[in-house]
Amino acid sequence: MGTTQLEPVPEPKYWHLKTVLSEALDSEFTVGEILPNERDLAARFGVARATLRQALEQLELEGRLQRRRGVGTTVAPPRVGVAVGTEQEAWPGAPGDAWQPVDCAEAEPPAAVVDALRTGPGEAVHIVRRSRVSHGQPVAAELLYVPASSVPGLSGIDAPSGAARARAVLRELQHLELDGQDRAVELGSARAEDARELDRLPGAPVLVVTTRFVARGRTAALSVATYRADTCRLTFADSGGLEMDHGPERQAS
Amino acid sequence: MGTTQLEPVPEPKYWHLKTVLSEALDSEFTVGEILPNERDLAARFGVARATLRQALEQLELEGRLQRRRGVGTTVAPPRVGVAVGTEQEAWPGAPGDAWQPVDCAEAEPPAAVVDALRTGPGEAVHIVRRSRVSHGQPVAAELLYVPASSVPGLSGIDAPSGAARARAVLRELQHLELDGQDRAVELGSARAEDARELDRLPGAPVLVVTTRFVARGRTAALSVATYRADTCRLTFADSGGLEMDHGPERQAS
Repeated sequence: MGTTQLEPVPEPKYWHLKTVLSEALDSEFTVGEILPNERDLAARFGVARATLRQALEQLELEGRLQRRRGVGTTVAPPRVGVAVGTEQEAWPGAPGDAWQPVDCAEAEPPAAVVDALRTGPGEAVHIVRRSRVSHGQPVAAELLYVPASSVPGLSGIDAPSGAARARAVLRELQHLELDGQDRAVELGSARAEDARELDRLPGAPVLVVTTRFVARGRTAALSVATYRADTCRLTFADSGGLEMDHGPERQAS
Repeated sequence: MGTTQLEPVPEPKYWHLKTVLSEALDSEFTVGEILPNERDLAARFGVARATLRQALEQLELEGRLQRRRGVGTTVAPPRVGVAVGTEQEAWPGAPGDAWQPVDCAEAEPPAAVVDALRTGPGEAVHIVRRSRVSHGQPVAAELLYVPASSVPGLSGIDAPSGAARARAVLRELQHLELDGQDRAVELGSARAEDARELDRLPGAPVLVVTTRFVARGRTAALSVATYRADTCRLTFADSGGLEMDHGPERQAS
């Protein structure tokens, strides 16, 4: 969503090129089509390659183009709406949860997570890795940090590792009563593991959704979810029951 | 929030450099300090300038560095939490609204907005421009699209333009009963006007929050708000009354 005529502003060169390219994408290219190489494109539009690259980066940020490993730059399909926080009254792993458990480890979390969880030094934290798929594509990777004190009934015997262990942690979480949650969305860059899982390059722009699950007045679990910023728009339905469609290509998943 | 030891992954060069730089930022630099120029930095860390630039871009995406016009690259302060959707039951312009009206124009909206509003061809749309300031810094710019049919009582006589006109449109909106709203967050690039207002370069990464306000079963207004992605984290408090603090530097505004 874009332009208005409120006030004229001088345009940088790459900005003008972006507009021209965007129109060319609409009229000459189809979704999934591979763009000509940078040299040919720069020649066609009569610009320096640095200018072309800036314009391509803009279009990538806006979700019009995708850079794909081993393929090149392709015309992106419209972004897919991915619902965030629809299970507002439920713990991760409750019925209807869109996330799939992948793995689980017990490890020292990063300092920012320790701050948020306010775990003591040396307190064990279960790190559950989960993934989310929408329309057959991986759209998000999550690390869910669960302090051992939130799942006191967890037994180490029957599921020591892997997805089974992850499911055991999630199952134990359901025994706690959830008081509420809060959530923050910010821009980030994909860590190497997440990038691989999301089929992106390390450092690609991602939307990081941090959710704190509160029980008994403290943070009982912390989710750090990394969504592909190129293919996803995060949707929030704030008002109970309101479900509107965003047109054929913009449906919530 | 960052790393975990779940599985080892080979690191690209710029990725390793990013980690090293990040540690140097913590130990040697203070918030607001200007970084040495690229040539000196590349020499100090023994890397090519292209590698250095990739690492700097990563740190910018993560909010650790800011590129400022006419200043250079500086160490960024921690991101500020900006509350989104706290007035969930209210129209834009209701008491307590964090946005300031700036301007108003009557114009043809972009095609995507026309789709969302489902206005007929040629139906007039008021475009209200508003801005949001947090901790003395501009954090977001908004275009609020209001079809003429949503504000039938609006008179053209006493406030034909400017902030007064914007306030008149917002005042008229309050006469409609709000049924609900939905919201989407996605990555975008700053349009030239927004960039100037937010003190960023055109094309800088931004978080675009699109909110549809629904009344009488249709979209009665559409807000497209552009938040600085470098300085803001958008916070959502989903559960009524839950207000937790995120530590000294991470308070919701």
